[in-house]
Amino acid sequence: MKPIKIGLLGLGTVGTGVVKIVEGHQDDLSNQVGSPISIAQILVKDRRKTRSIPIEAAKLTEDPWDIVRNPDIDIIVEVMGGIAQTKEYILEALERGKHIVTANKDLMALHGQEILAKARDKGCDVLYEASVAGGIPIIRTLVEGFSSDRITKIMGIVNGTTNYILTKMSQEGAAYADVLKEAQELGYAETDPTSDVEGLDAARKMTILSSLGFRSNVDLDNVSVRGISGVTQEDIRYGKRLGYEVKLLGIAERQDDLFSVSVEPTMIKTTHPIAAVNGVFNAVYVHGEAVGETMFYGAGAGELPTATSVVADLVAVIKNMKLGVNGRQAQLSYNVMKLKSDDQIASKFFLLLHVEDRAGVLAQIAQVFSDCDVSIESVMQPSTPHQSSTEIIIITHQASKKAMNEVLNAFESLSAVRRVKSVYRVEG
Amino acid sequence: MKPIKIGLLGLGTVGTGVVKIVEGHQDDLSNQVGSPISIAQILVKDRRKTRSIPIEAAKLTEDPWDIVRNPDIDIIVEVMGGIAQTKEYILEALERGKHIVTANKDLMALHGQEILAKARDKGCDVLYEASVAGGIPIIRTLVEGFSSDRITKIMGIVNGTTNYILTKMSQEGAAYADVLKEAQELGYAETDPTSDVEGLDAARKMTILSSLGFRSNVDLDNVSVRGISGVTQEDIRYGKRLGYEVKLLGIAERQDDLFSVSVEPTMIKTTHPIAAVNGVFNAVYVHGEAVGETMFYGAGAGELPTATSVVADLVAVIKNMKLGVNGRQAQLSYNVMKLKSDDQIASKFFLLLHVEDRAGVLAQIAQVFSDCDVSIESVMQPSTPHQSSTEIIIITHQASKKAMNEVLNAFESLSAVRRVKSVYRVEG
Repeated sequence: MKPIKIGLLGLGTVGTGVVKIVEGHQDDLSNQVGSPISIAQILVKDRRKTRSIPIEAAKLTEDPWDIVRNPDIDIIVEVMGGIAQTKEYILEALERGKHIVTANKDLMALHGQEILAKARDKGCDVLYEASVAGGIPIIRTLVEGFSSDRITKIMGIVNGTTNYILTKMSQEGAAYADVLKEAQELGYAETDPTSDVEGLDAARKMTILSSLGFRSNVDLDNVSVRGISGVTQEDIRYGKRLGYEVKLLGIAERQDDLFSVSVEPTMIKTTHPIAAVNGVFNAVYVHGEAVGETMFYGAGAGELPTATSVVADLVAVIKNMKLGVNGRQAQLSYNVMKLKSDDQIASKFFLLLHVEDRAGVLAQIAQVFSDCDVSIESVMQPSTPHQSSTEIIIITHQASKKAMNEVLNAFESLSAVRRVKSVYRVEG
Repeated sequence: MKPIKIGLLGLGTVGTGVVKIVEGHQDDLSNQVGSPISIAQILVKDRRKTRSIPIEAAKLTEDPWDIVRNPDIDIIVEVMGGIAQTKEYILEALERGKHIVTANKDLMALHGQEILAKARDKGCDVLYEASVAGGIPIIRTLVEGFSSDRITKIMGIVNGTTNYILTKMSQEGAAYADVLKEAQELGYAETDPTSDVEGLDAARKMTILSSLGFRSNVDLDNVSVRGISGVTQEDIRYGKRLGYEVKLLGIAERQDDLFSVSVEPTMIKTTHPIAAVNGVFNAVYVHGEAVGETMFYGAGAGELPTATSVVADLVAVIKNMKLGVNGRQAQLSYNVMKLKSDDQIASKFFLLLHVEDRAGVLAQIAQVFSDCDVSIESVMQPSTPHQSSTEIIIITHQASKKAMNEVLNAFESLSAVRRVKSVYRVEG
């Protein structure tokens, strides 16, 4: 039977994994889709470079247009990354009736709507399971598994680098800068780690997950982002004493036609299932009105886990080809929603304050909270005998982000509060 | 637009949930499938019974054939349970070209192949996501999410009743019989709890999961089953001291063309993600060659979680109707596999032995293990001063089930071992 021909854009980590799975699981795959799958052409940066897997030299090209314009290619698998240039290749491939499987979260977060609209026009599939949470089939789960439900909350550990760093800081008591350096040496963090540690990577993934989960167009601009570079050992230690772990959580919430999406280091109760997700693992917690609490856990990156999702998408595209139903992906942005303002976003908060150590300070602080209508759940004052200053840790009840900002503003003119050392959202 | 008409067989817990979701999420659902969904007819035992939700009396019938033979009905949703009679209704509905969504694990475990074959013949869909693990979309995950991978192990907590009982026993130190009684009073366990506590319910679910995961026909007869009625507080306490929780785990393993499936109370390392799954929650841990470790967690039963899965299947069937591709479910039993014999099934084991308290006993016991080629990982001998007998807890290294049985046989003629109190498989 005539094989389905794949053009592979990129032969880095994930691309190599795709070749390994398509070749290693060929029997299984062709049993499922009804024909062989052949990786016919591969875009590489340097044709002469030595590869970790045997590849016929004739399949390699350094010119992406060779593949995009090759009339024999049925499906483009894009695992090269990049945004503007890559988008051009993909739009041109769609124009020529080729289906797309991509692992590119940046592209889908920024230009997903344009690309999906073009695909519908041209009767083509664009699948992107691998763009979020590597081997965890979370996109399928949101789109198909929970098609019947109204999703109210998504909390994700969707960046392995930062979870590795925070896990090491929590388990070994190491400082942020030291763990980052170690992660870079191990290849878990990039030489320029900004996109990971400042939360941008996670924000892009949350844009994708919240769009699908809420069936609405969520823009990257709608996501409020804070990274982990300010997380200290002190925060982690005090968090633990109160029963929390610090995790970089993407949090998307929906109430009726209002939504909010954020990425920020969060104090999460140790009893919550997501608090135990450690190292480079990813997890996505989903709460639906009907289904209640669910969680999906697995490797968030890596050659074979990510390639598993890419090739699962490939199987789905080929099945659609056999049925003649490509380009019929459900239209999932039918909800028109409004971004919550700061007075509509509520959570508990953790505050670590550096304060004067004298009688009446706590009363003054409590008065500020009360004036701003924020009620306090607990206060911890670690004893620091014979010093003129001390620390106070406060956990609030549910309060709006706006009210919390008012508290922080009021502290600026309160001499008893020398410094607000940390503020964290609290979950779980 | 003409609504899609559903015939609902059964208006118990799950049936009521289906009505609530189809009515409550009607806008969302019709946005996805492109037409309204109407529950046109409902089978009940007693038309005059008072219901917790308002239902038009004219929709209710006490005769299943009214629904099965109703030419206006497009899809049958079967949530009545039962096996022989229910199978007749479903086969007749398929004969008449109706699609089926069912939550019936018993039916699918015992007669799934026959029903699916009939569906293919008739160009009909039969979907059954709700039959395993309630609201967790585990069937989609195995069939679609991991279509590209070769699944080597599935471990599931797939029975909420037994997990509730074991959790209570572990957390509160209560005895099995007392917790069972409490679970019955709370409605978490049936008046006759045999099917749950003796593992049959879990075995049926594991038949379904392993068939899909291994893409092969696994029969219920292939599953070795042991329930939790023999689990004691002593087992749980000693397990904890060694870092294990006792869970009723369904375990399906595959190596090349060999497989094994069992349901048994298992000592699972507390660091394993599935060990923390408590109460009536379910979780399925899946290991794939490429994807590595993954886990899927959520409510395993209950009105709305289970109905979420039923209605998600309904959405999938209707989308297929719109595309004209019903009855084209992937043929997933292309692997011909052989059941492992006892010498091919290996695990670690936990043994609790009641032994004579005198010098040389441990040496004799160690000799038995050595003679049977089973090596010991650890031995714990809790001190029991001034008694003529004592307990020994042994954890073995990986050993075959056959070798372990030889050890147990040898103990029968070893007077130093007064009684083998417990044997558990060890995982994690």
